[in-house]
Amino acid sequence: MSGLDDTHDPALRSWVESANDPATDFPIQNLPFARFRRAGSSEAWRIGVAIGDQVLDLCLAREQCSWGRVASAWLVPLAAGDLAAFMALGPGARRGLRAVLSVALREGSDRRAALEACLVPQSAAEFALPCRIGDYTDFYTGIHHATAVGKLFRPDNPLLPNYRWVPIGYHGRASSIVVSGTPVRRPLGQLKGPDDAAPHLAPTQRLDHELELGFLIGSGNAQGEPVPVTQAEDHWFGTVLLNDWSARDVQAWEYQPLGPFLSKNFATTISPWVVTPEALAPFRVAFERLAGDPQPLPYLDSPGNRAAGAFDIVLEVGLQTARMREAGLPHQRLMQSNFRDSYWTIAQLIAHHTVGGCNLGAGDLLGSGTQSGPGEGQGGSLLELTQGGRQPITLASGETRTFLQDGDSIELRAHCERPGARRIGFGCCEGHAIAAVKPL
Amino acid sequence: MSGLDDTHDPALRSWVESANDPATDFPIQNLPFARFRRAGSSEAWRIGVAIGDQVLDLCLAREQCSWGRVASAWLVPLAAGDLAAFMALGPGARRGLRAVLSVALREGSDRRAALEACLVPQSAAEFALPCRIGDYTDFYTGIHHATAVGKLFRPDNPLLPNYRWVPIGYHGRASSIVVSGTPVRRPLGQLKGPDDAAPHLAPTQRLDHELELGFLIGSGNAQGEPVPVTQAEDHWFGTVLLNDWSARDVQAWEYQPLGPFLSKNFATTISPWVVTPEALAPFRVAFERLAGDPQPLPYLDSPGNRAAGAFDIVLEVGLQTARMREAGLPHQRLMQSNFRDSYWTIAQLIAHHTVGGCNLGAGDLLGSGTQSGPGEGQGGSLLELTQGGRQPITLASGETRTFLQDGDSIELRAHCERPGARRIGFGCCEGHAIAAVKPL
Repeated sequence: MSGLDDTHDPALRSWVESANDPATDFPIQNLPFARFRRAGSSEAWRIGVAIGDQVLDLCLAREQCSWGRVASAWLVPLAAGDLAAFMALGPGARRGLRAVLSVALREGSDRRAALEACLVPQSAAEFALPCRIGDYTDFYTGIHHATAVGKLFRPDNPLLPNYRWVPIGYHGRASSIVVSGTPVRRPLGQLKGPDDAAPHLAPTQRLDHELELGFLIGSGNAQGEPVPVTQAEDHWFGTVLLNDWSARDVQAWEYQPLGPFLSKNFATTISPWVVTPEALAPFRVAFERLAGDPQPLPYLDSPGNRAAGAFDIVLEVGLQTARMREAGLPHQRLMQSNFRDSYWTIAQLIAHHTVGGCNLGAGDLLGSGTQSGPGEGQGGSLLELTQGGRQPITLASGETRTFLQDGDSIELRAHCERPGARRIGFGCCEGHAIAAVKPL
Repeated sequence: MSGLDDTHDPALRSWVESANDPATDFPIQNLPFARFRRAGSSEAWRIGVAIGDQVLDLCLAREQCSWGRVASAWLVPLAAGDLAAFMALGPGARRGLRAVLSVALREGSDRRAALEACLVPQSAAEFALPCRIGDYTDFYTGIHHATAVGKLFRPDNPLLPNYRWVPIGYHGRASSIVVSGTPVRRPLGQLKGPDDAAPHLAPTQRLDHELELGFLIGSGNAQGEPVPVTQAEDHWFGTVLLNDWSARDVQAWEYQPLGPFLSKNFATTISPWVVTPEALAPFRVAFERLAGDPQPLPYLDSPGNRAAGAFDIVLEVGLQTARMREAGLPHQRLMQSNFRDSYWTIAQLIAHHTVGGCNLGAGDLLGSGTQSGPGEGQGGSLLELTQGGRQPITLASGETRTFLQDGDSIELRAHCERPGARRIGFGCCEGHAIAAVKPL
């Protein structure tokens, strides 16, 4: 639990009253970043910080207050909407700005009058991707997911021999990453049933979600220069929710021998709010291997990683059909899991990604892979929850689902809580399926 | 052979005398683009066009001549070194500028005096990547490569059932793409021999090249909107040589089930010159399926693609060891193949990539996959040429190789020739291996 400072004090209160609501995702202990503007306006995108149900507009805040020389320099790219330029400055700038904003937003701050004019209700804002995503890599750290899906694809050999040694990952598509709220068009793809003589082109019949976290890279490394695991977290700027939409029928036919391609690259949704490592610091937990699992190779191992490299983050998925929406029914929770069950830590992912010399840069995104829990009903995808589509789930509306129908909305959420710390949350990562285009 | 105009006339000569050399890669019929500056200078990168052994500096050329309103607008981003902005304008701008430059560089042009001052010897230039690479996708269109490699990995099942139906591809790493001439550091990775109880981290012992072409995307498509195969080539801006460096031992251990990752993402080298579809137009050939192979699905098929969707491009790989370099021996040709043997056309790759709605954008790069020929000794990688490392090749220096040693240089080249057309070439794509960092 190192690295805690007074910005984590659970007793801290903000003059923004909604930030003191015990149920808010965004108390003053969180302070995540997003790129936003007033909804319906044509104003330039700018970076904001969440506080309660408001966004602190850093473009206005830069103008309204004097911030001192160092913080003023940090605010230049943020006011211009360029989060990546700030991310590239590394953890010092991020921690420094957190300290400054924490003081400015506390009860009794003399900045209150100036900053009140810089608040925008989140309900009146629209959000963009937090930055241009450079390269996107998707890992596969959910061993319960890997085992469950492996059973469906390879019943006799669910977990391949490399899984317990290699943080398995593959390159994803950056261009089709969209922000929460963007409709997701059902993709066309080659489908081939086991008894079909030939494949045909059709809309996927097995549209699915995957519950993941996404880790944004801040400062990068030079090509050819691996990042030691002990320094890896210095390159991690923040965390978002990530829905790795998947077309299971397309995937089954296309994925050998080079991995998923069109089954994944039609869309990936991330949440707008980037939660910093500082906000997550109170929720660090030990990283441990279960008996029988090999210890990580030396380049993936460190005392710090073992002591506190994992994070206790509760994750959940909700589903709302069009009929539920019309009936005023909220998203229905399908499952919960916890990122502490991830087989690899964030530091290990960064150390592995760079060990061969691959260069990471500001705005790169690493997906965690689907975070399924160890228990029944903890699958992070419909593929798992419905046993490959064989056991439909029944919803509050009486409808059933194996895979997603047009109009269905998937909502990912996450939060951290423990005694002695203020609960924080990640906001929401929502996407809804819309009908496919007519096959060509 | 549609689309030929007077810029292809094989009798055309340039006032740049070296462009009239029958052996040059860059006659006036070619006119490829690159991003360059004078070597050792600190001047801004700018776009140039190859003519003989010279580069026409479009930054200077814009200032030295009057070009008319339309061409002047095209030259603005090119003078500023922003090829992607020009690429995004689509094929009309590219064809228009080709016509203008072809006239200006012809024998007898009244622009000669002004443009002579805009020439830089290629030997006095240094080159950058032609543009920021957006997303990088690597395909697998070489059926002879897929079969040969498949035999090594899966002797009983070399070509998987999807191969003849799906243009197999996967996402690659954009950040580690480098321009010809950049050293390639031997990567560390997890290695595990068949008899090892556990993997260990070490420099790859099986560093290899792969002979590919790379296709740069110009104008993009909107997310969710597939590109019909009949319009696909409109999104293709140009072609480069591409060396998909591979660490075969890392690849064998890591690649299941999600495909290659660290075995490929340490470096990919491309040539600086972007050869346009117009330059390749005289070398179009029919695209045909062999008896026994299925016809492409309708979304991958069109009369135009069948008539002239393939390209006759001779490809070759040369190897020079450090000892050969010291002895003044040139690169020794290891093999030749031809892109007309590719199992899929460029139009089919673009149509497939977008059929599920994935959005392509200016500066995206599509690799062809390794282009091995059908015959003995036509392998586009050492893995194939040495039968998986079992049959070393002997070099003119008396040295032998299975995989690459530190100091070895690999050079890819390509050219097109046929009776009635002027020979054109692609220049060179060179990279050389340097020693690994010390294992962590």
